[in-house]
Amino acid sequence: MQTLSCTTVTAQPKSTEGEFKLGDYKLDSGVVLADAILGYETHGELNADRSNVILYPTWYTGRHMDNRAAIGEGRALDPTKYFIIVPDMFGNGLSSSPTNTPSPHDRGRFPLTTTYDNIRAQKRLCEEVFGIKRIRSVVGFSMSAQQAFHWGAVYPDMVQSIAPICGTAKTTPHDWLHLEGMKRALQADSNWAGGDYEKPPEAGLRAFHTVSCGWFLSQTYFRNGKYKNFLGTKAETVADFIENVISLFSYNDANNLLAMLATWQSADVSNHPKFGGDLAKALGAIRCPAMVMPCDNDLYFPPEDNEIEVSMMPNAEFRLIKSDAGHLAGFPGFAAEADAFVDQGIIDLLKQV
Amino acid sequence: MQTLSCTTVTAQPKSTEGEFKLGDYKLDSGVVLADAILGYETHGELNADRSNVILYPTWYTGRHMDNRAAIGEGRALDPTKYFIIVPDMFGNGLSSSPTNTPSPHDRGRFPLTTTYDNIRAQKRLCEEVFGIKRIRSVVGFSMSAQQAFHWGAVYPDMVQSIAPICGTAKTTPHDWLHLEGMKRALQADSNWAGGDYEKPPEAGLRAFHTVSCGWFLSQTYFRNGKYKNFLGTKAETVADFIENVISLFSYNDANNLLAMLATWQSADVSNHPKFGGDLAKALGAIRCPAMVMPCDNDLYFPPEDNEIEVSMMPNAEFRLIKSDAGHLAGFPGFAAEADAFVDQGIIDLLKQV
Repeated sequence: MQTLSCTTVTAQPKSTEGEFKLGDYKLDSGVVLADAILGYETHGELNADRSNVILYPTWYTGRHMDNRAAIGEGRALDPTKYFIIVPDMFGNGLSSSPTNTPSPHDRGRFPLTTTYDNIRAQKRLCEEVFGIKRIRSVVGFSMSAQQAFHWGAVYPDMVQSIAPICGTAKTTPHDWLHLEGMKRALQADSNWAGGDYEKPPEAGLRAFHTVSCGWFLSQTYFRNGKYKNFLGTKAETVADFIENVISLFSYNDANNLLAMLATWQSADVSNHPKFGGDLAKALGAIRCPAMVMPCDNDLYFPPEDNEIEVSMMPNAEFRLIKSDAGHLAGFPGFAAEADAFVDQGIIDLLKQV
Repeated sequence: MQTLSCTTVTAQPKSTEGEFKLGDYKLDSGVVLADAILGYETHGELNADRSNVILYPTWYTGRHMDNRAAIGEGRALDPTKYFIIVPDMFGNGLSSSPTNTPSPHDRGRFPLTTTYDNIRAQKRLCEEVFGIKRIRSVVGFSMSAQQAFHWGAVYPDMVQSIAPICGTAKTTPHDWLHLEGMKRALQADSNWAGGDYEKPPEAGLRAFHTVSCGWFLSQTYFRNGKYKNFLGTKAETVADFIENVISLFSYNDANNLLAMLATWQSADVSNHPKFGGDLAKALGAIRCPAMVMPCDNDLYFPPEDNEIEVSMMPNAEFRLIKSDAGHLAGFPGFAAEADAFVDQGIIDLLKQV
């Protein structure tokens, strides 16, 4: 007689890609983005009382497909337990972006979309498409960590916890500066033509990615020779490594890169009518449990910036990822030990809610 | 009757600017630079037995005038005690550079000048102009720290001590990378025209300096708001700070910047027939006392790189400058506490020789 072993037989977790039509979407700036869209993917199934929702937005150059590396059975973001929504950030080419927005907001004319613009749209997705009123956790890496902070500050009744990984609640002056360097490197190429390029501004894009890859890892990563095997590529020299980076990120349109960069530069949890620019007030408003996880070698978001933020948050824990991967320690699938550390942080956070 | 107080009356230390004609100067590459020149300045007077010589070369974008901020009575580099020679680095516009070299090595056609090319020319200056056989110390900041290491390695019978400040004996992969980003930012401007620009490639230069100023300080410096008073300038915003940087460094010609950058990227104490690329052998050859002083927040030359180098040097002390100024902690006149710390290091070093 055969024994039925129900507990070990699980259905393959369901993943669904979608596009939410926001209609005419009014931005923080007052500009109305006509027929705006929000791309997304969901993993797992929404339970009956809609209490198993995790939101996990995308980051700079990220698309919802890239978040899959953090999602899996047995992981912190387990689609057999949670309904995980991954909304695409404006500018990433899947949500409204310079590449998919018609005139008058096409290409270089795409308006600034702030972090608050993003999360407001994400809230509508949660409510209007899925009828969600509570989110167990907003998890985020890098620019999506910034979104997690923003979520916690303005929607305290909806958000039960946040897990910002390698990101700050407000872009710091130095963070703004290195982004400005990347931006100007791209725009130095006259083929950029204010965004109205006929073919991609190749020299500018190459300069952009070269500057970028000096920042998103750490000096220690290079000292350890790991650039020779960056994301599965092979490189003998740093010049080879740069070519690999350029190739891996070549799917990004120049205007899209600049649109997301503008979002990053403007990120500021306090830039909301509720807070009027008062950072302590905004961070103090994040009452839910927060697991803030910077990386000790992050050149974009040094841990000291998060330490200061955590000191202004009533219910936050600071956990330091130790990794030579620098900023990319928080990039899922990049560094196994960092992934495990981050997973444990999220698991410990979810126990509190 | 008037008392003569000889001990308190000192002559104003003498400073002399000069230009040493190297003639046709053969570079490491085999290329001969016709009618090469070496700009320099001396401070103080050479004593009778020529035993009071300190060599203090220039750094990236530095000219001999910039070294004056470290030289003065009562300082470590005291011109009433020492005869201090400040040779200009090739590419800085005063020694042979793209801007002052005739065809066929003018402008973008200026050949690579290595760190060894520089110090070989400096040795000739010392010997042929001043009859110097012994140097009490080679002191250097940044690229001139790199020169100090090179001096110590190949001229052990001439150099009695070295004091490399915020610089490594060999440019690391990450250091090479951030320089490559700066270079490509400049060259992304088609007005650069391979170096044959009619007017300066302004967008490229602006991008170059913007990228550069993200690196030469530290995140902490910006967190502390010091960018608002960078080198005596005033800035409300980081964008203002960038304009101040661009203005302060606007004396640099684009080809000169690229020539010095190539020297920096290629710096390698082991790249000499004596050592054949063996870094341990090259560093082991630096037998004189060495005072190696990195800054804890240096993004170009993190202290770990110097720690590794010092471990391979038989007679070196590692002293960590603690400063939020990052790389510029070693730039004389920039940060008073760091200046005092560096002075003490040099004083302690000079006691050993």
